[in-house]
Amino acid sequence: MQWIPRPCDELDNPRGILFLTNVIVDHLVVLAPGLLGASVARAARARGLARRITLWARRPEVRAALLDQPWCDAVADTAELAVRDADLVVLAAPVERIIELAARIAPHLPATALLTDVGSVKFELCRQVAAALPPGPVFIGAHPMAGGAHTGWEHASDDLFEKRVCFVTPAADAPAEAIDTVSAFWRGTGAEVVPAAPAEHDRIVAHISHLPQALATALAGFLATHPGDWRHLAGNGLRDTTRIAASDATMWIEIFQQNRTEVVRALDGCLAEIQALRDNLAAKDWEDVRARLVAGKTWRDGFKP
Amino acid sequence: MQWIPRPCDELDNPRGILFLTNVIVDHLVVLAPGLLGASVARAARARGLARRITLWARRPEVRAALLDQPWCDAVADTAELAVRDADLVVLAAPVERIIELAARIAPHLPATALLTDVGSVKFELCRQVAAALPPGPVFIGAHPMAGGAHTGWEHASDDLFEKRVCFVTPAADAPAEAIDTVSAFWRGTGAEVVPAAPAEHDRIVAHISHLPQALATALAGFLATHPGDWRHLAGNGLRDTTRIAASDATMWIEIFQQNRTEVVRALDGCLAEIQALRDNLAAKDWEDVRARLVAGKTWRDGFKP
Repeated sequence: MQWIPRPCDELDNPRGILFLTNVIVDHLVVLAPGLLGASVARAARARGLARRITLWARRPEVRAALLDQPWCDAVADTAELAVRDADLVVLAAPVERIIELAARIAPHLPATALLTDVGSVKFELCRQVAAALPPGPVFIGAHPMAGGAHTGWEHASDDLFEKRVCFVTPAADAPAEAIDTVSAFWRGTGAEVVPAAPAEHDRIVAHISHLPQALATALAGFLATHPGDWRHLAGNGLRDTTRIAASDATMWIEIFQQNRTEVVRALDGCLAEIQALRDNLAAKDWEDVRARLVAGKTWRDGFKP
Repeated sequence: MQWIPRPCDELDNPRGILFLTNVIVDHLVVLAPGLLGASVARAARARGLARRITLWARRPEVRAALLDQPWCDAVADTAELAVRDADLVVLAAPVERIIELAARIAPHLPATALLTDVGSVKFELCRQVAAALPPGPVFIGAHPMAGGAHTGWEHASDDLFEKRVCFVTPAADAPAEAIDTVSAFWRGTGAEVVPAAPAEHDRIVAHISHLPQALATALAGFLATHPGDWRHLAGNGLRDTTRIAASDATMWIEIFQQNRTEVVRALDGCLAEIQALRDNLAAKDWEDVRARLVAGKTWRDGFKP
């Protein structure tokens, strides 16, 4: 692992001091690359974050196709072989398969290896991956908030993470150097790194990602019980509000399973808010309804453009 | 009022038959033009839907400014004067002021005048406007589903209604010719006219427009009780789901007031759906949760692109 000096933005750094903000990984290994994992490999190649990139995928035909990509130096036949001399391993499998993948490669990792992942739920996962590892290798969980309408490595891009939030969620006892290195790697892909404890991460995404998904799904499911052509009469409001209802069901089952407690808690809070708006509307308490409309508007107006 | 033949789309009309689908109004009067009313005047001028366009606005400085517009032939000092020899009057005031405006101009309308409006709620409004009119003039309510981030006549455009749905909501006893003429006028602005009884219209928009607004407001209001920087960590899902929470509070109070019963009913149905999703999530009934995710996705995938 090599640290390279990189000048920070002039605004942050008026005197032009060089900070250690970037890292070059000697051997980067991405396991089970889909959209996110392959975009990590592409970003690493495009931005010079790794000297050597090894990939492993479960299906032989995917391995064959990956070998043809300019962002792939080698393909391993097994995950165990792939990680033998890895410096940084990215566990890019679907969230419920990351733990078993970590357990499988654990005996084959060099003692100095770092591991990170792309899973969208962190508390259980970080705990169990850490428990599966022998002394030596360190896992620093990550959750890049990036995606697209299409999944699969074929849709990966060099700049998927550019200016997107990437949570980095170290365990309380993680070594500072490992945290710094994994954070620097993610920052190198273009992401804005946000540190958070795993449990805090899960509470935040339950509110800002999983709750909106549940509401969009419920609204779409409710409207599905009404005439189908109503949706063609709607303006952009309904279109925007329900867009994520079209997300992949299998991915969301996994996220809901992993973050069930926090999602239920967020739903309870939001249900109380909807019920209060409904009750005050029914009671013609227009002062209360106006206050709710204004509070929502004030919050939404605070979004960055 | 003059009907002009216009060939229909080739797809609908393979034999090239001419249908009476367009109308020219001799004297169009738009009262209280804001974004929607001024866009009606602009569309009428740009598309040749009216020979003469007269406007009236409450504030003198607005009247002076309107007189300079190429889509305005005359400005009247009062609404009563404006409608004296009108063929078609567009009541473009905010929804809660349309009824009083109709009552005010009623004694001054020619017996042959037609009236329409742009109000987003229809049942009460259509009933009361019809009741305010003397025998002769006919009111055919309309609700063009168009708008923008900015209100006010300054932001009007020639093509605001292009390909947007415009509900036309005649009373049960409205003469067919009046319905046809008002429908043809709205179609002439570029809108896709959808006929609906006033009560049916209110039930539809309660579901496809007012319910999404209430949910976005409640979600934004709920998240406003959490740390403010969470919103900067969110992806596009939260951004889309809450976009309409930033809508104008005064406009929405009026809509909720006018359509309270239907909005409360839609909220009750949607609350039951959200509660069921929450309960099955809490109970780990993953088969049920998956079915809900799939139902929502199927419905959303059915949107036109």
